[in-house]
Amino acid sequence: MADEKLPTRAENFAEWYNQLVLKADLADYAPVRGCMVVKPYGWALWENITSWLDKEFKATGHVNAAFPTLIPMSFFEKEKEHVEGFAPELAVVTHGGGEELEEKLVVRPTSETIIGHMYAKWIKSWRDLPLLIVQWGSVLRWEIRTKLFLRTAEFYWHEGHTAHADSDEAKEEMYRILDIYERFCYELAAIPAIKGTKSETERFAGAQITTSIEAMMWDKRALQSGTSHYFGDNFARAFEIQFLDRNNKLAYAQTTSWAISSRIIGALIMVHSDDQGLVLPPRLAPIQAVIVPIYKNDDEKSKVMAVADRIFVELKAAGIRIKMDDRENISSGFKFNDWEMRGVPVRIEIGPKDVEKNSVALARRDKPGKEGKSFVQQVGLTESVKQLLVDIQASLLKRATEYRDANIHDPKDYEELKQVVQDGWALSYWCESKECEAKVKEDTKATTRNIPFEQPDHGGTCIVCGKPSKRKVYFAKAY
Amino acid sequence: MADEKLPTRAENFAEWYNQLVLKADLADYAPVRGCMVVKPYGWALWENITSWLDKEFKATGHVNAAFPTLIPMSFFEKEKEHVEGFAPELAVVTHGGGEELEEKLVVRPTSETIIGHMYAKWIKSWRDLPLLIVQWGSVLRWEIRTKLFLRTAEFYWHEGHTAHADSDEAKEEMYRILDIYERFCYELAAIPAIKGTKSETERFAGAQITTSIEAMMWDKRALQSGTSHYFGDNFARAFEIQFLDRNNKLAYAQTTSWAISSRIIGALIMVHSDDQGLVLPPRLAPIQAVIVPIYKNDDEKSKVMAVADRIFVELKAAGIRIKMDDRENISSGFKFNDWEMRGVPVRIEIGPKDVEKNSVALARRDKPGKEGKSFVQQVGLTESVKQLLVDIQASLLKRATEYRDANIHDPKDYEELKQVVQDGWALSYWCESKECEAKVKEDTKATTRNIPFEQPDHGGTCIVCGKPSKRKVYFAKAY
Repeated sequence: MADEKLPTRAENFAEWYNQLVLKADLADYAPVRGCMVVKPYGWALWENITSWLDKEFKATGHVNAAFPTLIPMSFFEKEKEHVEGFAPELAVVTHGGGEELEEKLVVRPTSETIIGHMYAKWIKSWRDLPLLIVQWGSVLRWEIRTKLFLRTAEFYWHEGHTAHADSDEAKEEMYRILDIYERFCYELAAIPAIKGTKSETERFAGAQITTSIEAMMWDKRALQSGTSHYFGDNFARAFEIQFLDRNNKLAYAQTTSWAISSRIIGALIMVHSDDQGLVLPPRLAPIQAVIVPIYKNDDEKSKVMAVADRIFVELKAAGIRIKMDDRENISSGFKFNDWEMRGVPVRIEIGPKDVEKNSVALARRDKPGKEGKSFVQQVGLTESVKQLLVDIQASLLKRATEYRDANIHDPKDYEELKQVVQDGWALSYWCESKECEAKVKEDTKATTRNIPFEQPDHGGTCIVCGKPSKRKVYFAKAY
Repeated sequence: MADEKLPTRAENFAEWYNQLVLKADLADYAPVRGCMVVKPYGWALWENITSWLDKEFKATGHVNAAFPTLIPMSFFEKEKEHVEGFAPELAVVTHGGGEELEEKLVVRPTSETIIGHMYAKWIKSWRDLPLLIVQWGSVLRWEIRTKLFLRTAEFYWHEGHTAHADSDEAKEEMYRILDIYERFCYELAAIPAIKGTKSETERFAGAQITTSIEAMMWDKRALQSGTSHYFGDNFARAFEIQFLDRNNKLAYAQTTSWAISSRIIGALIMVHSDDQGLVLPPRLAPIQAVIVPIYKNDDEKSKVMAVADRIFVELKAAGIRIKMDDRENISSGFKFNDWEMRGVPVRIEIGPKDVEKNSVALARRDKPGKEGKSFVQQVGLTESVKQLLVDIQASLLKRATEYRDANIHDPKDYEELKQVVQDGWALSYWCESKECEAKVKEDTKATTRNIPFEQPDHGGTCIVCGKPSKRKVYFAKAY
């Protein structure tokens, strides 16, 4: 409930974020270290995210399945880099049914290992490939510093795991998924995320290539918003995923994995929201428009509610996710603040004067105050609201894109790079050596985000060491 | 793959079941004790189950949310009966992030406790009620004897948890949900499950009333297919879920919980399937109709495939879940067996003669052999297939209902009861004492299933002890 104001973003961005998540009723702290409860409003948002992705995955030939939550500890020891990456973060089950277990079980931090084990059993021939499976659920990593949605011990996601007969096909899959993630960000989340390849240092544990989409938050930090990995035959060798190819020769499968997690809700908040609270893109908003009827007495109430009810039915029938706020004994001002806090894109106000004039007032959440307010006729209101939702969606993307572009810099030398990454991103040539990457991190706390697929048509010189460089990379501080 | 025959049900029902689950590609054994992997075909079936239920819950005002998978051990100790019921089945996390935990965490076997804890935080006033939350996910109980879908350590389900201002409303909720479960069984699963109240012995740990739907399997055992519980204020007292009522007095909330789990897939198998494999009701079948094109040479192939492709597009556009089996180098006979094993309701065969005659052959899965085969015109095929799917759905329910009714007995005395429950159910008067219930169990292994809501208009005498009895109960051996 919006009974208190948030701190402004400029005052205290971290505290603004924490309070917004709670006050917008998205999530709550759980009584388990580092875990969250995703409340119904937050989960409805997550369902809008997942249902679009699920449809896209199915349309590209993927199927869903479910693998156990608990994984034998020994599975993690089969792939060397993987175990090094995950060992410090594991939650371990040592007892079951009142007895100590012979082999410890791990609450899955990710499922490459157990899925790899099953794939080895299922895949015998090239006819069994590609195998394109997605699992929806949660995983657990024992994080030290946690933050609602952005970094919690348990988090929600899908994890795609695919096996292919050859490396080109597996790489194609990795890029196909990254394209879906990019479209999700642009079209649904109104976030202009940037596709690229991770540096060796920033790769997923066990991957040969990790690609990512990176988004700029309001505080200009980067948030890795989705990743798609190519493992080559690393996991196939570790788990013996072998098949008879078309020439009847035994070969290792090529595998990929990829994920977007509930972190993306953190990105939605930090890209679009403002000092009044959450701002949601209409395509993802659990409630796209809210009707607030305004009246002072029973006579006004009956006139106003007749119109409000009719409009509610019309908009609902048109497929708009609509809510009627007919709570009694709560002021309109309180209701306005409440729905602003929750980020509902459009507010429809109906008072006695509107009834007389056959009009309503529309307030758009992305432009608070007078600028975002308009008065429209009740006739044709469904179309007006639909159009407004489209406008808001486009406007949020435009604003986020302009903000991103205004804060990506092209520093002329290392001194300037050190300055710009304090409050923005740098897109600079880099020699791709670990030494230069580490130096930037040490000097500035900025890391390489990704090497974008879109590159200038010529090379340059590394902004750190001056050696020849083929490609530019984004340097930024990151969540 | 249907490369080997199943044992018949009469030969070895348990082994028939196990092999069917594997060969119909529904699930596989996991490398974790007592756990299963739900394969894509099984998961698609589960998605058809869950999406209908989710829609019904939302239509009745419920919302989804997510609570942590791990629950502090101390939470289980707050409700006495609950801890006694679940303590032997817990999987316990003792280490996290490389260190021993101060308080052990339990992988949730059910979520009343942690949800109760959050409800206590969220519910302050009667205005916050009712709170109607559903969680979709998996839970874990350390079962000793496991069986795919029927009893696995980890299983999939929804768990509804609601809090109400008064007991009548909470009980109404319990019955409303049971009605949804009953409609699911009749309308979707074609299973004539019976609603009723559980005996005190068979109640859920901590419940004041447990209601269930019970279904009869092919081997005449009962399977509890869904439960809906009323807790009174037991959990509210344990977790201090208190609110200010309309008179501004502090009161305890009344709570319910309810669930249908992936067990229901076991019921679907054991009610409808036959010695050739799985039989699925059309409304739940991931694939409702499969096209098998039949040809011997390239000339035939091109003619047949032109028709098959056209039909595929037409049926798909009509919303039928259709699959084309155009696998090369596999005989039609093998394909027929394969789709029979997987329980696809309708097979559409198209050969060169069908092309000439503008017809196709339709084979219905529920009636194998000639009886279920018909030849219909290609013109109007969409309607023919749709009608056939409706017929199959109705026919499965009719068959299961007749089977159930033929195997429910009304024994005249205890001696006859002891006989009939060896191969059927008894519906008999019972005095509702634990002693008589225990005696039946000891003598026959049959337990009370539920006291059906539909009762004769007069009482009788207990079939065990002869004392006066108000209501009849179902006695049966159960899974």
